[in-house]
Amino acid sequence: MKFNKVDLSFQSCVSNYEEADVVIYSVPMDATTSFRPGTRFAGNAIRVDSFGVEWYSPYRDRDLKNYKTVDTGDLDLPIGAVEDALNIVYDATKTILEDNKVPMMIGGEHLVTYPVLKAVKEKYDNLHVIHLDAHTDLREEFFGRELSHATFMRQAHKFLGDHKIFQFGIRSGDKHEFEWAKKHIHQQKFDFTGLDKVVEQLKDVPVYITIDLDVLDPAVFPGTGTPEAGGMQYKELLWAIDQFEKLNHIVGADIVELAPMLDPSGASTAVACKTLREMVLLLHKNIEKKNK
Amino acid sequence: MKFNKVDLSFQSCVSNYEEADVVIYSVPMDATTSFRPGTRFAGNAIRVDSFGVEWYSPYRDRDLKNYKTVDTGDLDLPIGAVEDALNIVYDATKTILEDNKVPMMIGGEHLVTYPVLKAVKEKYDNLHVIHLDAHTDLREEFFGRELSHATFMRQAHKFLGDHKIFQFGIRSGDKHEFEWAKKHIHQQKFDFTGLDKVVEQLKDVPVYITIDLDVLDPAVFPGTGTPEAGGMQYKELLWAIDQFEKLNHIVGADIVELAPMLDPSGASTAVACKTLREMVLLLHKNIEKKNK
Amino acid sequence: MKFNKVDLSFQSCVSNYEEADVVIYSVPMDATTSFRPGTRFAGNAIRVDSFGVEWYSPYRDRDLKNYKTVDTGDLDLPIGAVEDALNIVYDATKTILEDNKVPMMIGGEHLVTYPVLKAVKEKYDNLHVIHLDAHTDLREEFFGRELSHATFMRQAHKFLGDHKIFQFGIRSGDKHEFEWAKKHIHQQKFDFTGLDKVVEQLKDVPVYITIDLDVLDPAVFPGTGTPEAGGMQYKELLWAIDQFEKLNHIVGADIVELAPMLDPSGASTAVACKTLREMVLLLHKNIEKKNK
Amino acid sequence: MKFNKVDLSFQSCVSNYEEADVVIYSVPMDATTSFRPGTRFAGNAIRVDSFGVEWYSPYRDRDLKNYKTVDTGDLDLPIGAVEDALNIVYDATKTILEDNKVPMMIGGEHLVTYPVLKAVKEKYDNLHVIHLDAHTDLREEFFGRELSHATFMRQAHKFLGDHKIFQFGIRSGDKHEFEWAKKHIHQQKFDFTGLDKVVEQLKDVPVYITIDLDVLDPAVFPGTGTPEAGGMQYKELLWAIDQFEKLNHIVGADIVELAPMLDPSGASTAVACKTLREMVLLLHKNIEKKNK
Amino acid sequence: MKFNKVDLSFQSCVSNYEEADVVIYSVPMDATTSFRPGTRFAGNAIRVDSFGVEWYSPYRDRDLKNYKTVDTGDLDLPIGAVEDALNIVYDATKTILEDNKVPMMIGGEHLVTYPVLKAVKEKYDNLHVIHLDAHTDLREEFFGRELSHATFMRQAHKFLGDHKIFQFGIRSGDKHEFEWAKKHIHQQKFDFTGLDKVVEQLKDVPVYITIDLDVLDPAVFPGTGTPEAGGMQYKELLWAIDQFEKLNHIVGADIVELAPMLDPSGASTAVACKTLREMVLLLHKNIEKKNK
Amino acid sequence: MKFNKVDLSFQSCVSNYEEADVVIYSVPMDATTSFRPGTRFAGNAIRVDSFGVEWYSPYRDRDLKNYKTVDTGDLDLPIGAVEDALNIVYDATKTILEDNKVPMMIGGEHLVTYPVLKAVKEKYDNLHVIHLDAHTDLREEFFGRELSHATFMRQAHKFLGDHKIFQFGIRSGDKHEFEWAKKHIHQQKFDFTGLDKVVEQLKDVPVYITIDLDVLDPAVFPGTGTPEAGGMQYKELLWAIDQFEKLNHIVGADIVELAPMLDPSGASTAVACKTLREMVLLLHKNIEKKNK
Repeated sequence: MKFNKVDLSFQSCVSNYEEADVVIYSVPMDATTSFRPGTRFAGNAIRVDSFGVEWYSPYRDRDLKNYKTVDTGDLDLPIGAVEDALNIVYDATKTILEDNKVPMMIGGEHLVTYPVLKAVKEKYDNLHVIHLDAHTDLREEFFGRELSHATFMRQAHKFLGDHKIFQFGIRSGDKHEFEWAKKHIHQQKFDFTGLDKVVEQLKDVPVYITIDLDVLDPAVFPGTGTPEAGGMQYKELLWAIDQFEKLNHIVGADIVELAPMLDPSGASTAVACKTLREMVLLLHKNIEKKNK
Repeated sequence: MKFNKVDLSFQSCVSNYEEADVVIYSVPMDATTSFRPGTRFAGNAIRVDSFGVEWYSPYRDRDLKNYKTVDTGDLDLPIGAVEDALNIVYDATKTILEDNKVPMMIGGEHLVTYPVLKAVKEKYDNLHVIHLDAHTDLREEFFGRELSHATFMRQAHKFLGDHKIFQFGIRSGDKHEFEWAKKHIHQQKFDFTGLDKVVEQLKDVPVYITIDLDVLDPAVFPGTGTPEAGGMQYKELLWAIDQFEKLNHIVGADIVELAPMLDPSGASTAVACKTLREMVLLLHKNIEKKNK
Repeated sequence: MKFNKVDLSFQSCVSNYEEADVVIYSVPMDATTSFRPGTRFAGNAIRVDSFGVEWYSPYRDRDLKNYKTVDTGDLDLPIGAVEDALNIVYDATKTILEDNKVPMMIGGEHLVTYPVLKAVKEKYDNLHVIHLDAHTDLREEFFGRELSHATFMRQAHKFLGDHKIFQFGIRSGDKHEFEWAKKHIHQQKFDFTGLDKVVEQLKDVPVYITIDLDVLDPAVFPGTGTPEAGGMQYKELLWAIDQFEKLNHIVGADIVELAPMLDPSGASTAVACKTLREMVLLLHKNIEKKNK
Repeated sequence: MKFNKVDLSFQSCVSNYEEADVVIYSVPMDATTSFRPGTRFAGNAIRVDSFGVEWYSPYRDRDLKNYKTVDTGDLDLPIGAVEDALNIVYDATKTILEDNKVPMMIGGEHLVTYPVLKAVKEKYDNLHVIHLDAHTDLREEFFGRELSHATFMRQAHKFLGDHKIFQFGIRSGDKHEFEWAKKHIHQQKFDFTGLDKVVEQLKDVPVYITIDLDVLDPAVFPGTGTPEAGGMQYKELLWAIDQFEKLNHIVGADIVELAPMLDPSGASTAVACKTLREMVLLLHKNIEKKNK
Repeated sequence: MKFNKVDLSFQSCVSNYEEADVVIYSVPMDATTSFRPGTRFAGNAIRVDSFGVEWYSPYRDRDLKNYKTVDTGDLDLPIGAVEDALNIVYDATKTILEDNKVPMMIGGEHLVTYPVLKAVKEKYDNLHVIHLDAHTDLREEFFGRELSHATFMRQAHKFLGDHKIFQFGIRSGDKHEFEWAKKHIHQQKFDFTGLDKVVEQLKDVPVYITIDLDVLDPAVFPGTGTPEAGGMQYKELLWAIDQFEKLNHIVGADIVELAPMLDPSGASTAVACKTLREMVLLLHKNIEKKNK
Repeated sequence: MKFNKVDLSFQSCVSNYEEADVVIYSVPMDATTSFRPGTRFAGNAIRVDSFGVEWYSPYRDRDLKNYKTVDTGDLDLPIGAVEDALNIVYDATKTILEDNKVPMMIGGEHLVTYPVLKAVKEKYDNLHVIHLDAHTDLREEFFGRELSHATFMRQAHKFLGDHKIFQFGIRSGDKHEFEWAKKHIHQQKFDFTGLDKVVEQLKDVPVYITIDLDVLDPAVFPGTGTPEAGGMQYKELLWAIDQFEKLNHIVGADIVELAPMLDPSGASTAVACKTLREMVLLLHKNIEKKNK
């Protein structure tokens, strides 16, 4: 019998960093969460419960074990220091991109997508963002802060520019956000209608995909800080990922806002595990396309 | 810095009673609940968790903060004395109506709708009731009682009369209830089919809307005493409220049967919070119509 | 006042074994469960919570109290001895069939269906099986075992033969299972499409129905060991049972994989209670048909 | 293999009523509970979880299986009709006593002890009561009711008379209750000090023992409606039961106020199961003494 | 019937600010929590559940309803901005002290005691602090921050000075903290030994009392972010409060670190409610002493 | 920034196997659990939550980071094959001992201690075992099995011999077990009385320590399959470990029976984390002694 150190990498994603094409990293931060915190625990909850998820996806007809993926675990963040933490997320993403790997980030609160987008934008100037969410996240400021989970996409707009952000599933925000959205971004309220057409349009430009899992109905995903009724079924999310397969240039992705302790049944964590599997396979397929 | 007493009114519903058009009041009673009690805690759970819900509704395109609503809290009820408690609910509703305000009641078990209907009927003789529910609530008696959550609509029928009650979403009851319903009320089993037509028909008569939140599928709303599978999605409830916007004379409304402790994820309470926001906005819009 | 021993039979299923047509028995075994155990507690959880379910079904327009059903409780099984336990399940089923009663089994993990099928096959040589599930359960072996919840249907195929198994709702498995299925069984991935046609085809042959409740979406049924997102709504399961009414020769049925402690809201147990009511009524209707 | 109807009697207490010396019956009532309800589910929770408790007690050096005990299950009570329900409890107790058996009641809220005491007093005129509780339960009235969980012992005093009630562990009540107690009953605040002496004093008179399990510290027993910190350790309760062994004439007993759903760990239900075993063994030993 | 706005003040603490002697205010902040967040919800959880606690204390022989206490609710804090939030806590405390009222603060994480101590020190230069806690909170810095829940008492020492801090119950920290403590403060490891003598010594100097409820054993108080086994029983805490009664000059107090969602049984919140009642009564008794 | 694979070793136990003196390994098996399963998840729950525990122990005045410990994670076990799984545990322990390292095992159900003892006995012929537990575990057989959590110590006695097993804290078992114990082992019922003397007696012989965490009171440790009231306080367990410091030849240790999902507060897992830290430090101190 031979002993090694414990390896709690997500599922079969046991490659080393050097050999991997896709890099999973999790960001244990929920510092600006306004209602119920707990997303800081998402990464390790997904790791431990990934034991219950198959490596093969009948949706993508692909198997995780055939790809090189590393799981680097939680970033090491200072507590209660938002800007410092965001800088570390930025640096991590920057490094991954410089090493020509594709970032697959697990939140944490949605604000952690902000520094990822910043780093990605610096590499891909013509960056477009597909954003699935229940909430607009387009406030100019929130509880006196410019950078928070409720403002991050408005702030990201400042470097992304007009008509680069494509939101779907939005069903909560204040009136000004919805009005601002009409002029500056593509916003589909309540569902994913038109996602297939947007994908068609973005086929050949660099696209980053950020999935706030609360875009799902709280029936499907109660384990999140601010559950918002009237959301998407899981089959609709699977359909969206089917559409993403048609993109030719996905440059990174994330899933955020799982707060595992809020759903003691574990079903929300299982949803996140399955979504992560689908997204990792999506990224690998995309890399294959590019390599051809 | 200036200090005031703690104010845990629902969201932004911080008006005083005198200035308010709509009156929120909650009824902490679950005395005749046959299976799992706990609806007595619904009112305060909704108040505390309403922090997580936006004031603006993209469905109604209205903002709670632009309207005058008072939240008067839980009624003060005797414990274990059903009739006395119902009388207090009756008196409270009577007062609200006499003060020309619109009652928005939060249950409690569904029996508490009975004294509300009685008071409303005394003001609006031609009263019609739209009733969304999983359960018929049409028993002649239940465990030896005439007044219980399982009989209240049959008892209300005695003063409302034939063809004044319009039930939707019903999927549980005993055979006699379903048969009785065929003769005396409008009853749509399993879903909301025909609700738009009923609304058209009731456009100009006084209508009270009572929503037993267990009309929703337990997936969406597990936090209730008697979850009944095969119910409505939240988007379908939103569609129903869209229909209600076409009514010209809504005279009151309630949402009942949230048992918050039964859903530790908090998602059921969030569903109730959002529904309350939609219903309060609906009532205000209706008042605006009448005032024109 | 007269005292009897406590009777916690499922709902109104209080007949004695001798007089009963349908026999409910539960199998408290989760010994080969690979992820989260707990299905051993399903039977008694269903019994205790069946208090919250009506005896009458508006879907079948039948009432449990009009039929003779016995609930014999949990089988008495050795702990940690898989083969011995399966033999007891086999013997129990054998006895029920020999006594010309119809078995209605409650799992336990899905492996417990294996000895039931074996016993049923011995009575009905031309046995066909309709299998609703999220998982293929078609592995050749699993963690070194031939008999486990993940292999049982592949093992059952050895005595059932080709083209006798009809799977629906499958959305998890490994690639080899899906490929094997194409040659040997009927397998509908992701949903119930074609179930009505299969029922038409199996109208007059002996059919056993096994329902792994995790075929439902985890939104509807989170209380199970391995929740698998993207499943069926409860109304779709009700539609499936509607189809089953057209079968002329149902020889037994089971519902498995409820792990009640995993869903503290109790909604999953309520789903199982309702499904059990529907299935028992289905079996009685089928007996009536045959008796005509 | 031979089939019987399911038997979920407490542990090995599977005798018939006729042959039994001790009768377990549970009272599923929590109608006057002022804070968190749920004690109605105690009886069946104890039954189902008694599987996890040994039949033999190393404290009493006795084994439940050597005694004749029947478990008659939940009484069948009307919902929301307090007086009617109490009458049924009274009748049941009366019957048990007339049949010369010893009642072992499981609550339910503590009010259900009131009709039991009434029936016992009618048989044993010189009745004394040992009452372990966190709460005085000595209010003259409570929320407008004379009969409630908070008043029942004051009401029972009316037929028991002065100096017949011996309270221990009391740590919550209003000032008037504590003052009233000084004149009319024996009351030990905060702990069990003096219980051994009281037992000595009551050695040969008829004694009924009522144990509100919330006398235990919430650490030991969180699953109760109104947890009151600063209570007894379980070893102290075991010591109290050791003292009870010295009584020569115990005429009945109860344990009340388990609300199983409030403690998802199940530890509170396990505490109740163990206490019930100890109390049943205590009653049997007492019967043996009398029979000598 | 007369309607007022909902009043969810703690228990009977319904005075206005102007007339009150003691001011309850809660600080919904858990921004520097390193492990499990959620203390931000403590204030309102205590308010809502205080319904289950008596107004009279048999320990202090006093009744809350006989004193003037205001409950001003949660302070309104910016999210994710630690320094700004602490300034608001400081301002609030300053105002209360300038108005000659006694502050009774509810945390939040323990860091929120820091600005309270700063404000109190400015009024009472000879300030001494009694600190009950499981954790030293004496780090020089923590995860790169000077101000955090793990450093706050070390930072407070900078303005309080040597030998002004008296810690009891400490059982977790790093080695340097324990060594630093030996030179600069009074520190009793593991229990409350010597608390009576310290109280004797501090009898006539201004004393602030800060109670981290995690000083209690997790058995008694599991609802906290970092449960630390081996703590105090509740009766020991009651004994400590008995000692505090001998102090002549208590200038403020707090209870911190309840994370209500972490204990679904509600027992931890009940512990906090009872402790708050005892502390408010303690403060009022102390005011009476001074007024004599 | 430099990326490594995720490392979820217990706390600071990040050494490699080769350099380590103490080897942590966990056994995810609960196959013979008779009541509530779930101990299979203990190892990873402890790993993930060890973030909340200090590395330094004020009880041992030692710091984990100063020692070489490896955490090798869960053993890879076949599902549902008890004997095969036990053989793997045996092989693992054998390897660790052959490599002259000290095994620190985490269960799993208590049966997994059996193969560990077997391997240890083969290296240390004069092996003595100190066994802290609520349950005797001395049955000759259980539910038809010789090897189960309820029999393992009786089976181990067969190779350990008479008077080599020293049990403390025992409070549950059947009568025959208690009687057998009197002749063959040292058994202290209910508490740790005499543990100090036993330690004195075993000072210089090889001792293995097995701690079934259910020896603790369920108040302290509700997260276990069969909670047994009347157990030990955590301070008493700490005292026991203090005694163990006096042993000169500890050859291995384990902690078993944490079922983390049964205690949603996380307090039980925190208890296990702290106990593991204390035990690892104890083992290292013991190694230091031997190396002197």
